[in-house]
Amino acid sequence: MKLSELSERSDVPIASIKFYRREGLLPPGRALGATTAEYDEDHLRRLKLIRALIRFGGLSVAAVRDVLAALEEPQNPARVRGVVDYALPTDLPETDPRTVDDDHSVWTAEVIERMGWDISEMSPHRQALDERMRVLRRLDMDIGVEELLPYARLAEQIAELDDTHLNWPGDSVTVAERVVVFSVLFGPVLPLLRRLAHENRARRTYSE
Amino acid sequence: MKLSELSERSDVPIASIKFYRREGLLPPGRALGATTAEYDEDHLRRLKLIRALIRFGGLSVAAVRDVLAALEEPQNPARVRGVVDYALPTDLPETDPRTVDDDHSVWTAEVIERMGWDISEMSPHRQALDERMRVLRRLDMDIGVEELLPYARLAEQIAELDDTHLNWPGDSVTVAERVVVFSVLFGPVLPLLRRLAHENRARRTYSE
Repeated sequence: MKLSELSERSDVPIASIKFYRREGLLPPGRALGATTAEYDEDHLRRLKLIRALIRFGGLSVAAVRDVLAALEEPQNPARVRGVVDYALPTDLPETDPRTVDDDHSVWTAEVIERMGWDISEMSPHRQALDERMRVLRRLDMDIGVEELLPYARLAEQIAELDDTHLNWPGDSVTVAERVVVFSVLFGPVLPLLRRLAHENRARRTYSE
Repeated sequence: MKLSELSERSDVPIASIKFYRREGLLPPGRALGATTAEYDEDHLRRLKLIRALIRFGGLSVAAVRDVLAALEEPQNPARVRGVVDYALPTDLPETDPRTVDDDHSVWTAEVIERMGWDISEMSPHRQALDERMRVLRRLDMDIGVEELLPYARLAEQIAELDDTHLNWPGDSVTVAERVVVFSVLFGPVLPLLRRLAHENRARRTYSE
């Protein structure tokens, strides 16, 4: 298909497609002449994915490049999800350098240890959790390891459930793409379900 | 204390304090003269809360006003959390009007019905979940009610755990403030724990 058809079917403006191509996110089409190129279904699929990651996932162009690179090599879907999870924005609060020597990171380390989790020292999630705990502490919230542990146990159940989606049928690229879409787009679903569950509990309390 | 001390102890710039005061978020201090006013510990506490809601929670000034109004009347902490949950940004993807007649909202309604949840027709979480499901569908992800239900059940367990924090000791304002802080600042903790659990599962898979 021509560029115009690719734009129409993907619902991505031509200017954006050219930008993604320049940034190396989208492979070039097959050259038909000096100014026209032919694109195929793989381009369309890739383009939809790029669009979803940027528009709905909030990923930067650099993060999308990392994710797409992970998709290039056929590999363990769990590994692909690891790359995606690391690339996702962590919604980090601003750091206050004066509180860097707080004992928050001791808490995170203790939660990880008591859960028996194997987590890289460089994990951005470890750092993001540290930051969150630091903010809660600054507001004098009496929350620590004992409060976090029950949530960590539920998170483990959620991760187990998430992993069942890794084993759905399909070739390795399809599975990897599904992992990407799930991590990025399905991520906000659970917090929404949690708020719905809160609403239900609150409404039942009033009507009693 | 004077305005300068309030600024120093709260770590909020004087210009921001004046802005919050003009916007009606922070009550005026006790006038000492034409240009100076006296602030107390309640002002400091309120100011820290406003700052946390805006800076870390991403709430708009209007949303903060709603939340603070809910704190004014002594009431059920679950009700306060309801106001906070409704005020929180839902991270809604952009709507594509051409897909509005999708059957996504049928799914959300079915999940709510099968969970036996009592949810307002006007709930922003219902709408946000609709939107998320719509995006997943546009990317041809084969996910529907059966895939959502196990997550809804886990969300119910999380909400039950969240509610144990409502019953901590304290006067009604303290409890309500804690609910606010928990909803806004503790909200992102679970997704982070989920990513840590993913990382653990992935690392264990490689090392086997």
